[in-house]
Amino acid sequence: MKKRPLILITNDDSIYAKGIASLIEAVKDLGDILVVAPEKPQSGMGHAITVNHPLRLQKSDRYEGIEAYSCSGTPVDCVKLAIYEILHERPDIIVSGINHGANYATNVLYSGTMSAAVEGALEGIPSIGFSLLDHDLDADFDASKYYAERITQEVLKNGLTKGVCLNVNIPKLPITEIAGIKVCRQAKAYWEDKFDKRQDPFGQDYYWLTGKFENFDGGEDTDVYAIQQKYVSVVPTQFDMTAHHAISEINQWDI
Amino acid sequence: MKKRPLILITNDDSIYAKGIASLIEAVKDLGDILVVAPEKPQSGMGHAITVNHPLRLQKSDRYEGIEAYSCSGTPVDCVKLAIYEILHERPDIIVSGINHGANYATNVLYSGTMSAAVEGALEGIPSIGFSLLDHDLDADFDASKYYAERITQEVLKNGLTKGVCLNVNIPKLPITEIAGIKVCRQAKAYWEDKFDKRQDPFGQDYYWLTGKFENFDGGEDTDVYAIQQKYVSVVPTQFDMTAHHAISEINQWDI
Repeated sequence: MKKRPLILITNDDSIYAKGIASLIEAVKDLGDILVVAPEKPQSGMGHAITVNHPLRLQKSDRYEGIEAYSCSGTPVDCVKLAIYEILHERPDIIVSGINHGANYATNVLYSGTMSAAVEGALEGIPSIGFSLLDHDLDADFDASKYYAERITQEVLKNGLTKGVCLNVNIPKLPITEIAGIKVCRQAKAYWEDKFDKRQDPFGQDYYWLTGKFENFDGGEDTDVYAIQQKYVSVVPTQFDMTAHHAISEINQWDI
Repeated sequence: MKKRPLILITNDDSIYAKGIASLIEAVKDLGDILVVAPEKPQSGMGHAITVNHPLRLQKSDRYEGIEAYSCSGTPVDCVKLAIYEILHERPDIIVSGINHGANYATNVLYSGTMSAAVEGALEGIPSIGFSLLDHDLDADFDASKYYAERITQEVLKNGLTKGVCLNVNIPKLPITEIAGIKVCRQAKAYWEDKFDKRQDPFGQDYYWLTGKFENFDGGEDTDVYAIQQKYVSVVPTQFDMTAHHAISEINQWDI
């Protein structure tokens, strides 16, 4: 009989988030589960790793019958600790999320959820980041759970090209209104940043990063467009950041 | 008379690092300088932004005659605060570094230095991250300063393709031994991670992330190879993480 796949689950909203509880429910029948997730919210941590502080790892009984650990570090730290300190082997798949909020377009750069999946790809492990376009702590994850299970099953069946992970975003819609799944590219859409400047009770200034997300990409093959059309967007994502098209141009320079 | 270019300088080793002092010296004659850099070391912070804590910004008199601020956040926070809160306009160029330690190959993902440059590219600003292959706090930055000035001048003259920044790594060699500059691609080279597990005085375990950097890439057009051949490596770097080659394959799936 074929061995059950080993599934590593992580996220960036912390081990206590409804999103990771939903992801555990969605995939727990597909294999053996290990959860290693941050003890505190790590949104916006991108591909950060912890090098200036010691890392802590704590066994957690949060999820009945599931081996789980909380970690003082980032989502990428969680993936590294899971592989090199807990498992001492590579899991068959890594699923990250389900994130509370969109990780499409250039959000992939800031997203701890997706950086955990990218770290999986770096390790040669098929990996998927899931995000629901709803920041609500008590968001409805029913449709997300359905698609997370389906896409995880498909990746377990087909594998993924080496060095590629998936960035899956799910629209905030009841399952009956979702049009299906679309494979896309990352949209050229950005945050127009704005800082909310305030004064603390001691008269010192501080800032909150806010802003407006703007899509400057007219393409109909992007993740942002797919979501607008009520699709679940799937962007195959990789970690070669070389601008190959710019190499010959820079070689013309007189340096 | 042409206006002097406005140069934003940041880094991830903090406003107190020798590397940023060297970068200021290297480019200060090329334009008007604004320094916005982290108040504490932010190595390994990747593209992290601060969303769960308020951000602080403090005027600094660290560099005589230079407008400078220290920031409680990450390198990417520094770039955003500089543009949207201090300047209220885009600088003509962003230079980040000079980092103490290599940022070639997949290090680009973890590097705060390079993420500041990538954030610049996202904003449409020609941006360069500089790194010297020497972790010593008192490293010799003479060769790095020479190349930082030369490459910054060249980017001011030629500009950069929109959405592209440069990842420049400088070998730890006296300037007379450096063979020149090579435009490269990011090597497929990774960290083989290892955790150093210790016990604190209270009997609790903690971990330090360590590891060995391994080059699995036989190519002679990579940054790691260029450095080994005593060249300064220049990798044009972009932020579209789509694995375009994988789209058609995933479209074959039955989902």
